[in-house]
Amino acid sequence: MAADSHSHVPALLETIGAEVSSHLERLLEPPSADVAPIYEAMRYSIAAGGKRFRPALVLLTARMLGADDAAAMPAACAIEMIHTYSLIHDDLPAMDNDDLRRGRPTSHKVFGEAMAILAGDALLTEAFVVLSRPNARLSADQQIRVVHELASAAGACGMASGQVADLQAERDPSCPFGVETIHRLKTGRMIEAAVTMGAVLGGAGAEDLGRLRDYGRSVGLAFQIADDILDTQATTDQMGKTAGKDAAQGKRTYVSQFGLAEAKRRAADELALALAALRPFGDRSHSLADLARFCVERRA
Amino acid sequence: MAADSHSHVPALLETIGAEVSSHLERLLEPPSADVAPIYEAMRYSIAAGGKRFRPALVLLTARMLGADDAAAMPAACAIEMIHTYSLIHDDLPAMDNDDLRRGRPTSHKVFGEAMAILAGDALLTEAFVVLSRPNARLSADQQIRVVHELASAAGACGMASGQVADLQAERDPSCPFGVETIHRLKTGRMIEAAVTMGAVLGGAGAEDLGRLRDYGRSVGLAFQIADDILDTQATTDQMGKTAGKDAAQGKRTYVSQFGLAEAKRRAADELALALAALRPFGDRSHSLADLARFCVERRA
Repeated sequence: MAADSHSHVPALLETIGAEVSSHLERLLEPPSADVAPIYEAMRYSIAAGGKRFRPALVLLTARMLGADDAAAMPAACAIEMIHTYSLIHDDLPAMDNDDLRRGRPTSHKVFGEAMAILAGDALLTEAFVVLSRPNARLSADQQIRVVHELASAAGACGMASGQVADLQAERDPSCPFGVETIHRLKTGRMIEAAVTMGAVLGGAGAEDLGRLRDYGRSVGLAFQIADDILDTQATTDQMGKTAGKDAAQGKRTYVSQFGLAEAKRRAADELALALAALRPFGDRSHSLADLARFCVERRA
Repeated sequence: MAADSHSHVPALLETIGAEVSSHLERLLEPPSADVAPIYEAMRYSIAAGGKRFRPALVLLTARMLGADDAAAMPAACAIEMIHTYSLIHDDLPAMDNDDLRRGRPTSHKVFGEAMAILAGDALLTEAFVVLSRPNARLSADQQIRVVHELASAAGACGMASGQVADLQAERDPSCPFGVETIHRLKTGRMIEAAVTMGAVLGGAGAEDLGRLRDYGRSVGLAFQIADDILDTQATTDQMGKTAGKDAAQGKRTYVSQFGLAEAKRRAADELALALAALRPFGDRSHSLADLARFCVERRA
């Protein structure tokens, strides 16, 4: 495999990201003046951008299985809305107390704490509005399964508990949560869900769904280990958030717990597992394979 | 109609409330030690009780249409989980800053602000886990429509914007939101959704669904006006929250905006509309009718 087999991924992510952003913008037009204030706050955080990595996983998985983007776009937008809600709430003074996110003032800095909490709540809730809208391209069964994948990954057995564990580990060094538990819950489950949502939308049977779940799980962990490595190396400018902040806050990272060499080794192992899970899909899976490589080898 | 035709409602609510509480308790058993902390906070607020009024509306509507409780119980629990999340977030220091709820210390007083925010987030998310679990008694179409009813009522065009409008009206006397807009968004949409979810679960056709939506809308407004009236009259002990607090905080209530006499008149009008919407259902609708009467005439 050529070292630069993933060199086309940034351009692919940029194209997908632009499409997702434009759909999100339309989804978040306020339908009436009564409700315009919360939409303004929701749109602010959504417009702050980011790589739209989770939506790309939804769309590329669905595409691989032959579904068209119109079938998968609501789910791609919904997972980005939930990811964005989690960033708004994580940044709150009671949590990580961050002033900057993706290079812009955080939601509570601009709109105040009450509105930031409510804009997060509303993004989380509207994700399920988007997923449950009548959609002629999907069966109701597919829709409800997609709801289940996303809600399960974001809820008390996933992202929400990941943030609890992250905060506890930071505030109490004797807290028993290892970095792998934190990563699996806080980011891993959502990245896995992006892939399984795409799989359900593409009509995957149980066996393919299982393979893609394995791929998603490995990519999720590899992605987060790579993030930990980047946090120790990148400049604030490259990261769009305060670099080295995780370490400064005493957060448990893969690097702080196991060292840089072991972190790199483990990211490579997870990448190998992700690629192995894709093998039965043959050539169709090259985009997902390159995306996994890019996750581990990216510079920002 | 005898003046005490709703005298059996407290006992009915108590029976239903006990069933719902026991289902909620089972739904909120932590599945693993990793995630036990957030479940503890979720359970604390759920166990604080309340009338379980919204679940009762779901179950009684579904029962009227011939569905059994096992089909409707997940939706009954889900709406109570979302109602409870909204109370946890409303009580936060950045919002209404309340120390007491239903006579017990609020979530952030017991668990801290970060956990209270996350427990609310998790209750909101888990409601959609519960609604989307495979359920042999329901079609996928019914399930996805129930998700849509609940998410739409709780989201940016419903409860979340209601809380924004409520806070804005309190903090800025020149704010244009009237009390009716605030009530419709903040409590009305969710009570309406309780009824429409029950209607979908009971297999209602479009016409019956419309009638029941009208019933739910009128009950929702009447319920909140009655709450405003009670807030001016009840003692703290009866309310389980600080009585007169709405007025003291400068919140817009139906009584403060229109006066007590007009508030009572409007509650009676909405009750009449609710009862009229039930007429086509004949005798089957006596429980829903009595529940509407009870809403308006209750003492706590």
